[in-house]
Amino acid sequence: MRDLIIIGSGPAGLTAAIYAKRAELDCIVIEKEAISGGQIINTTEIDNYPGLYHMGGFDLGMKFREHADALGAEFVEGNVVEFSRTDEKVTVKLESGEVYEAKTAIIAGGAKHRPLSVPGEDRLRGAGVSYCATCDGAFFKKKITAVNGGGDVAVEDALFLSRLCEKVYLIHRRDEFRAAKTIVTAAKAAHNIEFVLDSVITEIKGENKTEAISVKNVKTGETKDLAVDGVFIAVGMLPESEVYKDAVKLDEKGYIIADETGKTSAPNVFAAGDIRTKALRQVVTAAADGANAVTSVENYLHSL
Amino acid sequence: MRDLIIIGSGPAGLTAAIYAKRAELDCIVIEKEAISGGQIINTTEIDNYPGLYHMGGFDLGMKFREHADALGAEFVEGNVVEFSRTDEKVTVKLESGEVYEAKTAIIAGGAKHRPLSVPGEDRLRGAGVSYCATCDGAFFKKKITAVNGGGDVAVEDALFLSRLCEKVYLIHRRDEFRAAKTIVTAAKAAHNIEFVLDSVITEIKGENKTEAISVKNVKTGETKDLAVDGVFIAVGMLPESEVYKDAVKLDEKGYIIADETGKTSAPNVFAAGDIRTKALRQVVTAAADGANAVTSVENYLHSL
Repeated sequence: MRDLIIIGSGPAGLTAAIYAKRAELDCIVIEKEAISGGQIINTTEIDNYPGLYHMGGFDLGMKFREHADALGAEFVEGNVVEFSRTDEKVTVKLESGEVYEAKTAIIAGGAKHRPLSVPGEDRLRGAGVSYCATCDGAFFKKKITAVNGGGDVAVEDALFLSRLCEKVYLIHRRDEFRAAKTIVTAAKAAHNIEFVLDSVITEIKGENKTEAISVKNVKTGETKDLAVDGVFIAVGMLPESEVYKDAVKLDEKGYIIADETGKTSAPNVFAAGDIRTKALRQVVTAAADGANAVTSVENYLHSL
Repeated sequence: MRDLIIIGSGPAGLTAAIYAKRAELDCIVIEKEAISGGQIINTTEIDNYPGLYHMGGFDLGMKFREHADALGAEFVEGNVVEFSRTDEKVTVKLESGEVYEAKTAIIAGGAKHRPLSVPGEDRLRGAGVSYCATCDGAFFKKKITAVNGGGDVAVEDALFLSRLCEKVYLIHRRDEFRAAKTIVTAAKAAHNIEFVLDSVITEIKGENKTEAISVKNVKTGETKDLAVDGVFIAVGMLPESEVYKDAVKLDEKGYIIADETGKTSAPNVFAAGDIRTKALRQVVTAAADGANAVTSVENYLHSL
C-alpha cells in the first residue's frame, strides 16, 4: 500500500508531490485535467509568484510540473468519483473504475470562481474579465474597472482597485452589503468608488477586450452600459469538495476545514490549497500548503 | 507617513515587498545585511522551492530581490535597534540613528539556527554541515549522516533521513528526549538509526567536506570518531526578535506569536517567515507569509 495519494496537480498538489518525492514517500498524484497547473493555466500573466516575475500562467504551471517530474513524481489522469477512508487507509475511485489505496491522502482539488453566467463572460475571460483583484489588479492601473459582488471579497477588491484605478464601479444586486461594515464605510469614503446598487451585470461587451458592461437595475428594470476596461467578478468560490463531504468536515461554503498544517477532521486526510479554509488564495499560499501538508503526512506516518 | 515598513528581506520580506508594491502601498524595506535573501544566501542548493528546481541559494535570493526591484520596491540598509508602536504608528530606529515611521510594520527578520559552536562547524557549513534535514536531506541519499539534538525537530530529522540514508546516528547529550514519545518510538524501531546518547559532538572533521565527527560521552568522558558524510544540527533556532519584545507578544522560545495571516498581539504589527510561530520553516512557507501579511496590512488600513 502506498504512503500517499495526492489529489489535484495545481500549485498545491505539485508542491506536495515535490516535497513527498524529496521525502521518498511512495506516492501518486491524480489529476482530472489533461495538463497540470490548476486555475493558473488559464491566467494570462502572473506577476506575484516570488522569483518568477512576469510569467505566463500556463508557463508557471509547466515549471511546477517539470519540477515534480524532475524528482520522479508519478501522475495518473482521472476524475475522483468516490473517496472513503478508515483509520487504516484511504480509498479513491476514479471515473474509469480504477481504485487507488494509500495510508494517507492530500486533497488539493482546488476551487473554481463562481461565474456570473452572462453573455461575454467566457469569451472575455483573461481579456478584462477577472476573478481575482489581488492577482490581476495591477494590470489595470489608471483604468476604469467594475467589481461585482456584495461580500467581503468584493468590497476589499473595490478598495484594492481604488488605489490603482482611475475609477471603480461597485455593482451589487442588493442595497445592503454582507461585507464587514468597516470596509463598506471605507469604500463609501473612497473618492473614486461609485456604488451601483440594486443592480446586476447582464452582459460583458467588447471585441477582443472588455469595453463595457450592461447593468440592469432590478428595482426599476432600467438597463444602461458602463464603459470599463476590466470587470472583477467576486460572487464567491465553488470549492471542488462535494466528493469528500462524508470523509472530512466542510464549512458552510464547502471548503474543507483545515489550518495551515493541512490537518482536517480525519487523521489521515490532509487538505492543501484553495480547497481549504484560509484567508488568502494565491499561487504562493497554495504552494506553501503543499509543503505543510506533506510534513503533516510524515508526522502522521511516524505516529503509526 | 508611509503605509508600511517591512523589516527583513529574506523570502518573507521580499514577498511582502512584491505584494505591497502591487497593492501600491507606500512602503520601505529595511535590511541589515548588504545583500537580500536571508538564510538562503548561505545555502549551496535549494531543490524544493516550486518552479525553480535546482537553484543555488544565493541565486534564488537574487531572483526574489530582482522581482521586488522590478516592481520598484525601495530598500534601506540598516540594523533595527529600537522598535516601538502606538495605535497610530510604528517607529523604527536604525543603528545609524535614522528613524522611520509608518502606519504598519511587517516583521520578517528571520531566525538563525543555533550553532553547536564546535571546531569545523563554520568551515564545513554547506559542505556536509546542515541545519535543515527537510532542505538538504535529499543530497545525502544512501550516505551516512548524524543528527544532533533531542527535541521534536532532531528526532523528526533522524526519521526523515532514515528513509534516505544508509545509516543515521542520533546524537543527544542526555539519555531521554524532549521529543514526543511517538516519534522517539518510531526512531527506535527504524533499523538504520543508531542512538548515541549522553554524548556531544566536540569536533566536525574533514578537508573540503565533512568526513567524521568526534563524539564525547559526557558520562564516561570517552571520545570516539564516527565516519559521516553529513551532520544535521538540530539544537534549536534563535528568532531575531529581541528588539520587538516590548511591542508584540513572543512565545517562550522567542518567536513572535502570529497565525498564518501574520496578525500579532498588536493591531498594526504583523509577522512573516521564520520569526513567527509556525510548524514548517521553508522558503515557500516564508514567501506565503509575506503575501498573507500584506493582505492583513491592507485589511487593517481599510479599517482605519
